[in-house]
Amino acid sequence: MEIKEVFKKEKDLIEKEIEVKGWIRKHRKQKEIGFIDLSDGTTIKQIQIVYDKKLKDFDEIQKIHFGSSIKVKGILKKERDIELHAKEIILIGDCSEDYPIQPKKHSREFLREQAYLRPRTTLFQAVFRVRSVASMAIHDYFQKEGYVYLHAPLFTASDCEGAGEMFRVTTLDLEKIKETGKIDYEDEFFGKKVGLSVSSQFEGETFAQAFSKVYTFGPSFRADKSHTPYHVAEFWHVEPEVAFCDLDGIMDIGEDVLKYVIKYVLKHAKDEMKFLDERVEKGLIKKLKKVLKEPFKRVTYKECIDILKQSKIDFEFTPEYGSDISKEHEKYLTEYFDCPTYITMWPKELKSFYMKEKEDGTVYGADLELPGIGEVYGMSQREDSYELLLERMKKLDMKIEDYEWYLKLRKYGSCERSGFGIGFDRLLMYLTGIESIKDVIPYPRSHRSCDY
Amino acid sequence: MEIKEVFKKEKDLIEKEIEVKGWIRKHRKQKEIGFIDLSDGTTIKQIQIVYDKKLKDFDEIQKIHFGSSIKVKGILKKERDIELHAKEIILIGDCSEDYPIQPKKHSREFLREQAYLRPRTTLFQAVFRVRSVASMAIHDYFQKEGYVYLHAPLFTASDCEGAGEMFRVTTLDLEKIKETGKIDYEDEFFGKKVGLSVSSQFEGETFAQAFSKVYTFGPSFRADKSHTPYHVAEFWHVEPEVAFCDLDGIMDIGEDVLKYVIKYVLKHAKDEMKFLDERVEKGLIKKLKKVLKEPFKRVTYKECIDILKQSKIDFEFTPEYGSDISKEHEKYLTEYFDCPTYITMWPKELKSFYMKEKEDGTVYGADLELPGIGEVYGMSQREDSYELLLERMKKLDMKIEDYEWYLKLRKYGSCERSGFGIGFDRLLMYLTGIESIKDVIPYPRSHRSCDY
Repeated sequence: MEIKEVFKKEKDLIEKEIEVKGWIRKHRKQKEIGFIDLSDGTTIKQIQIVYDKKLKDFDEIQKIHFGSSIKVKGILKKERDIELHAKEIILIGDCSEDYPIQPKKHSREFLREQAYLRPRTTLFQAVFRVRSVASMAIHDYFQKEGYVYLHAPLFTASDCEGAGEMFRVTTLDLEKIKETGKIDYEDEFFGKKVGLSVSSQFEGETFAQAFSKVYTFGPSFRADKSHTPYHVAEFWHVEPEVAFCDLDGIMDIGEDVLKYVIKYVLKHAKDEMKFLDERVEKGLIKKLKKVLKEPFKRVTYKECIDILKQSKIDFEFTPEYGSDISKEHEKYLTEYFDCPTYITMWPKELKSFYMKEKEDGTVYGADLELPGIGEVYGMSQREDSYELLLERMKKLDMKIEDYEWYLKLRKYGSCERSGFGIGFDRLLMYLTGIESIKDVIPYPRSHRSCDY
Repeated sequence: MEIKEVFKKEKDLIEKEIEVKGWIRKHRKQKEIGFIDLSDGTTIKQIQIVYDKKLKDFDEIQKIHFGSSIKVKGILKKERDIELHAKEIILIGDCSEDYPIQPKKHSREFLREQAYLRPRTTLFQAVFRVRSVASMAIHDYFQKEGYVYLHAPLFTASDCEGAGEMFRVTTLDLEKIKETGKIDYEDEFFGKKVGLSVSSQFEGETFAQAFSKVYTFGPSFRADKSHTPYHVAEFWHVEPEVAFCDLDGIMDIGEDVLKYVIKYVLKHAKDEMKFLDERVEKGLIKKLKKVLKEPFKRVTYKECIDILKQSKIDFEFTPEYGSDISKEHEKYLTEYFDCPTYITMWPKELKSFYMKEKEDGTVYGADLELPGIGEVYGMSQREDSYELLLERMKKLDMKIEDYEWYLKLRKYGSCERSGFGIGFDRLLMYLTGIESIKDVIPYPRSHRSCDY
């Protein structure tokens, strides 16, 4: 029986015989009695096993090492908490003495090095369960709203938005190139240069012009060398794209999604969120519940620059109209507004070429800033005019032929359309209170780091 | 209003004024009247728009090209089907004359070349909606059963099971290697050789030993040059992994998943499945409903070879004990059994090193064969003994140091555990009746083909 079920049905199970399996998280031994905290990971809670001298192999049981897997048959009792009074304890898999995890607090850095074992700690049981539940919340939201889930390709022959550096994929033998001094791209698996997708927006747009509402949820890759708590080379990306929708409409959807995910996680990962609230970020649940109550702020870029200027703070980067909003500015602004805030209408020079332009040189784009995290979504209304988009691309000296099909979407039944990209891992940092993106990702990949 | 909503609430909407937006799928023009079939992709159904001379811009409207996006205001009427009697039709985005899709039947090969436009056809509206709904079914099944959804990494520094050829990822400048004749792997983004994951099983096992029940659902990559209707280089992979579970247990789960997905798709993509049943595979729904009714067959590899031998058929590959079961054999066997069938207990030489071995030299592995498709899942009980696994790897001359952490799982609280991998795209072929895997994937990538 799963330990989760034991807690769920405890009323019916008291005084009954049950069997559980799991891993030992704590083993306290006394002369006549022993206590084991057992986890099977189906719940963050551990069940306490009590055994005593009556068991014929008492001495053997006392030798069972922390981390081992065991099977326990016993009678469920309830004192203050539930306890399983063992009638039989059988060792399934021993845990060797060199087990790196000990029944004590380890640093997050140490646990990161033990990425294949850290899900066995209570902290990472909470984090990765929340990750799973939040993923389901994303799917649940979009599916109930009638969106089509698009599995966008990760191999791409086009440069998409050129954001960040792209990883190259090859089946060529690099050693052979070195020796012979020759490359034949025709020998490549795909017969041409191919890289890994940094965004599925363009594919999303093609599907939005067929299904009206689509979303992707899959990995994206950026060969970004930044060593910050917010950057990894492989991240999960949610990219909804909606036809017949303007910037205001997509901001409504973005707000709706976030609130839905928060509600869902608070409901479906209750114990985990309580643990994170107690151990990682005091006030986490209160912070999230506050978000549910109020509409997100929508402030223009220009207003933000004005607020930053009026702050009189000696920023490292002086806030100026035309310059980007840096991490320190984001921090000030989110504290100033004290709630999720959309920064809208950016100067076009700061944003991607595909955003729809207003006459004043700003674009219909918005970044969602979350207190403590900074930017989590980027969204925009896409340029829907073939002529205007082509003109903009020419001005930016882009290779038009690489974007032929993207442009053509504007010739074949174009329409107002908007979309956004959620950095799912950053969203998780916000939801869990975890300070490093590497601690919300099972096996994080970043500059000079690809272990396991 | 979404067209889906119009059909759903038609009773309440008759004789009321509504507004819809969408793309013209058919435009029939008569002298005094015009008919437009309008789709917005929220449903596979199109709504018929009727307009007449009473509209002041009647002549302009008649010129609107197939494929254009329009906005229509009108009164909903019901004759045999519902019709929207237009009071106003506004062109949103014109469709240029060179639009490759025409209101006629195109070949699948032609549409594959127009991958960015084909979701606008009814066939691909059905296929990609089913893909989305079936994905949700997978998540729904595992989440309701308490599994943790694991986002496994796609960048990998280990060779995993060495299945298929691995794509290499690089940030090195190949041209520079050619010119200088030098490679410094230290210059690689990750500081070492990295490839793209062919399977997430190993990461799944690490999480199963923490959460008991986990699944992955994400892309996998294989540089496989096979040109068949079943092979692509990038595919979506569902990989559940369950602790305290043997081969029989995992076969139960595999059967349960497939039945759940079928039920879910028949319920949530009813119109689409009806369309596919009528236009793609006659009897599709009947075939799927039959699967729901009976338990899957479980037959040993040895029994299968015997059946093949007794068949007296002149196979290209003569069935022999010790040889693999080829595509033609699969075809014969699935027709012979006429239901989803697990082929179990294979000779170890034919299967991966990590499968648990029986004394007779067979392994606890099973392939699920579906009639008309062949193998869709591969599953096995994993070797849980450190010593036996190590011994097997040494015999196979594997590089032990590359599998250090995988091996160590067997030293740190090992247990019976089993898992399987579903080729999601092949499963979709089965669910939709579509004959080529390239037609169930939005943007398929395969040998010498990476368009869009």
